Amino acid sequence: MQLFDYFRSSASYRVRIALNLKGIDCEQIGVNLLKGEHKGDEHLSRNPQGFVPALALDSGEVLTQSLAIIEYLEEVYPDRPVLPTDAAERARVRSLAQLIACDIHPVDNLRVLKYLTGELGISEEQKTRWYQHWIEEGFAALESRLSDAATGQFCHGDTPTLADICLAPQVFNAQRFNVDLTPFPHIMAVYQHAEALDAFRLARPENQPDAN
Amino acid sequence: MQLFDYFRSSASYRVRIALNLKGIDCEQIGVNLLKGEHKGDEHLSRNPQGFVPALALDSGEVLTQSLAIIEYLEEVYPDRPVLPTDAAERARVRSLAQLIACDIHPVDNLRVLKYLTGELGISEEQKTRWYQHWIEEGFAALESRLSDAATGQFCHGDTPTLADICLAPQVFNAQRFNVDLTPFPHIMAVYQHAEALDAFRLARPENQPDAN
Repeated sequence: MQLFDYFRSSASYRVRIALNLKGIDCEQIGVNLLKGEHKGDEHLSRNPQGFVPALALDSGEVLTQSLAIIEYLEEVYPDRPVLPTDAAERARVRSLAQLIACDIHPVDNLRVLKYLTGELGISEEQKTRWYQHWIEEGFAALESRLSDAATGQFCHGDTPTLADICLAPQVFNAQRFNVDLTPFPHIMAVYQHAEALDAFRLARPENQPDAN
Repeated sequence: MQLFDYFRSSASYRVRIALNLKGIDCEQIGVNLLKGEHKGDEHLSRNPQGFVPALALDSGEVLTQSLAIIEYLEEVYPDRPVLPTDAAERARVRSLAQLIACDIHPVDNLRVLKYLTGELGISEEQKTRWYQHWIEEGFAALESRLSDAATGQFCHGDTPTLADICLAPQVFNAQRFNVDLTPFPHIMAVYQHAEALDAFRLARPENQPDAN
């Protein structure tokens, strides 16, 4: 298996955490977004969206979309599960993951920011406010959801799940863009527990071979 | 079970299709977004995000996020499956669904459009271009992905899956905003097959009790 990723990509960061949690060996190949390698024919043949991550299986098939990749890993490598067994609990974990992966992350994606500053000509200050706004709005809802009894050291109980896999990269981004995180004590408690694990720490952008 | 939805919500539309495909009886309760009912305490207690759909189980638990809800329905009502059995095929279907549900739909969401016209003061014309741009970009990648041999009458083979459940509402939105769909023959062929089924047709916004 080969993971095509980029050190700073949040979606790649998620897959790296999942691979680490499950102890799956995988060759990591950097696709340099700054050099435009994701828009080259080679990468577009892997993923017509031109996004990372892409996971090339030994069969030659290439999987895309971080959550779909992690669900695949969960099904093929069921040890050290990242989803609970009960259907309603699985739904809770997936919904927390999707709150981040559908409703926060894509709106703050680089291609969206580029459209805002390019086509729409907004200022750097307006761009930063945009970025922070969607994190603050999403985190307010996430904080409320994490205040229920199903939350433990992690988003769901005391072991990491798909929800934490999405939470950690989003907190990383929030810190990078100076979002005030003091209103989100439940989120930050989970983040501290996650960062204490090698699986999460080793997946951080600065610890990747293509980091610069 | 009770589905809290809104006739025009695309995410609700997805869950309605899934319920119809599986033949699951479910009471439908409209949450009027125009009247701000989604921001009221009653709905926020169901979903702190204030979004629809929300599925209230007979146990009292409330599930949110359309894809998490549909995965739950798939696990609890496995008849008439909306995911294949093979793990790599499931990943293909989920990635097609997420291409739409993560990378197109949230960027064109009403709350985002409101921020653009409110906080950023963009024109109606710029808003329409924004809306069309993200559909066109996403559909170009989706069209390319659907050109492979795994596509049949539907996105994956000849029976509807989670991918089609996401595709139909997105095409509906594209038509509503006058996106030129002629460059996307694979997408439109799938859409025609989907619309031929009662499960899809009866889930359309105009066929809901709260439609106006």
